[in-house]
Amino acid sequence: MKILVSNDDGYLAPGIIALANEMRTFAEVMVVAPDSNRSGSSNSLTLDRPLTVYRADNGFYFVNGTPSDCVHIALTGGLPFRPDLIVSGINQGQNMGDDTLYSGTVAAATEGYLFGIPAIAFSQVEKGWAHVDAAARIAREFVQRDFDLLDKPYLLNVNIPNLPYEEIKGLRATRLGKRHESEPVIKTLDPQGREIFWIGPAGKAKDSGEGTDFHAVANGCVSVTPLQVDLTHAAQLDALKRSMA
Amino acid sequence: MKILVSNDDGYLAPGIIALANEMRTFAEVMVVAPDSNRSGSSNSLTLDRPLTVYRADNGFYFVNGTPSDCVHIALTGGLPFRPDLIVSGINQGQNMGDDTLYSGTVAAATEGYLFGIPAIAFSQVEKGWAHVDAAARIAREFVQRDFDLLDKPYLLNVNIPNLPYEEIKGLRATRLGKRHESEPVIKTLDPQGREIFWIGPAGKAKDSGEGTDFHAVANGCVSVTPLQVDLTHAAQLDALKRSMA
Repeated sequence: MKILVSNDDGYLAPGIIALANEMRTFAEVMVVAPDSNRSGSSNSLTLDRPLTVYRADNGFYFVNGTPSDCVHIALTGGLPFRPDLIVSGINQGQNMGDDTLYSGTVAAATEGYLFGIPAIAFSQVEKGWAHVDAAARIAREFVQRDFDLLDKPYLLNVNIPNLPYEEIKGLRATRLGKRHESEPVIKTLDPQGREIFWIGPAGKAKDSGEGTDFHAVANGCVSVTPLQVDLTHAAQLDALKRSMA
Repeated sequence: MKILVSNDDGYLAPGIIALANEMRTFAEVMVVAPDSNRSGSSNSLTLDRPLTVYRADNGFYFVNGTPSDCVHIALTGGLPFRPDLIVSGINQGQNMGDDTLYSGTVAAATEGYLFGIPAIAFSQVEKGWAHVDAAARIAREFVQRDFDLLDKPYLLNVNIPNLPYEEIKGLRATRLGKRHESEPVIKTLDPQGREIFWIGPAGKAKDSGEGTDFHAVANGCVSVTPLQVDLTHAAQLDALKRSMA
C-alpha cells in the first residue's frame, strides 16, 4: 500500500511526523507538505508564482506553497509514486462544523479526492499536541479498517479528542455541525502605531446535537464525517427557476 | 440598499470598477478588495499575520489579504456599514464546475453568506474583459431582481458569457457541472537552472449536459447556480456507520 501524507501545519509539525511514522509501520509512505504553517489556507492553489520542492534530511518533501499545492504537485508532477490513499494531518486543532471549509488539512485530502484517490483528514480537537501519539495510533488503526462499503473515492474528516488511547470511547459517524458567526476581527495597533486587524477565532457551536461532530468528540468519541464537494444547493433550484421566470 | 463589493482580482481590476459603478446607480456601495490578484485563493483566511486596510483615491478600500479576509474585516471590523447584499467580481474568467471550490470570487461571496448576508458572485466566462460593460449591466439587472422565493441568506454563482448585451439569451438556473482532472503541473527551470513547478489549468468539462453551468453558457445564457456550503456527504453516512460497526 502506498500512502501520500500531507498537512497544513508544515513539514516540521509533530502531528505529521507522528502520522508518517505510524503509516510507515505497514505502508510505503511519501510526505509532501508545506514549508511552514498554512492554517486557514482552505483549498487555495498558488497560481501567480512557481513552486519549488525541497527534500529534508528525514526524507520529507516540502514545498513553498499551500496544502493543495503539495498534493497537486505530488499527484501530477511526474513522481513515480501513485498513492492508494492520501492522509492529511494530524492537525493541531479541530476541523469541525461549517468552518471545515477553511481548513488546509481537509483541503489537502480534498485535493487527492478530486484526483480520484480516497483521502482522510485527521485533526486533534485541542491545540498543543497533547496525546498526539495516541491520535497517531488511532489514525493508523483507522486507515487499516475496511471501507469497501463506501463509494470510491471517499473523503473522510476525522477529529480525535486529546485523550489517552484507553480513554477514547470509539468511532462515531457524524455530520458537520454548525457554528455561530465568527468572533469579530481584533483591531489593534502595530509597534509603529498603525491600525492593524487580526482575524478572530471561529464561532461557538450552534448545532452541536446528537449526530454532529461536536457531539461525538464532546462525548469522548472519534468523529468521522464523510465529505463531498458538490456545492450546488439543489433544494433551491426550483425556487430559483421560479424567481427568474 | 447597501451593497458591499469585493473580488479576487484585486481592487484595480476592470471587473470590480465596472461592477461598483453599476451598483452605485441605485445603491450605497462600499468596496473592500484585495491589494493584488488573489485568484485561486479559495476560502483562505490569513491567520499568521495582521492585516492592514488602505483607502485608494477612488474611495475603494484595499487589504493586504485574501478575498475572505476583505469581507471578514468589512463585516466584523466595526465599520458603520452593514450591507444588505454582497456582490463579488466581476471575475476575469469562469468559476464553473467542481473547481468553483478554488475560486476567490465565490469565496468572498461565501464569507458574506456565512455571516447571514445574501451574496452573489459574478464571473465572465472568458478572460480578457471583452464586453465587461455588458456583464456589469447584466449584474445590475440581476441584483435588482426579486429573490423573495429563495431561502435567506442565498448564495448565487453567476457566470456571464463574453457577448454584447443584445446577444445574451437570458438566465438559466443551473447546477455545477463536473470536470476531468486538472492538467498536470508544468515542470520547468528558472533562470538560475533550478527546477520549478507551475500549477496547470483546470480540466476540461466532463459533465456539461443540460442543466449544468457549462451547458448554459455554451448556449449563450447567463448561468445562475444556487450554492450551499454543507460539505457533509449525507448519502454516505449509513455506509460509513456499517463500515465502523
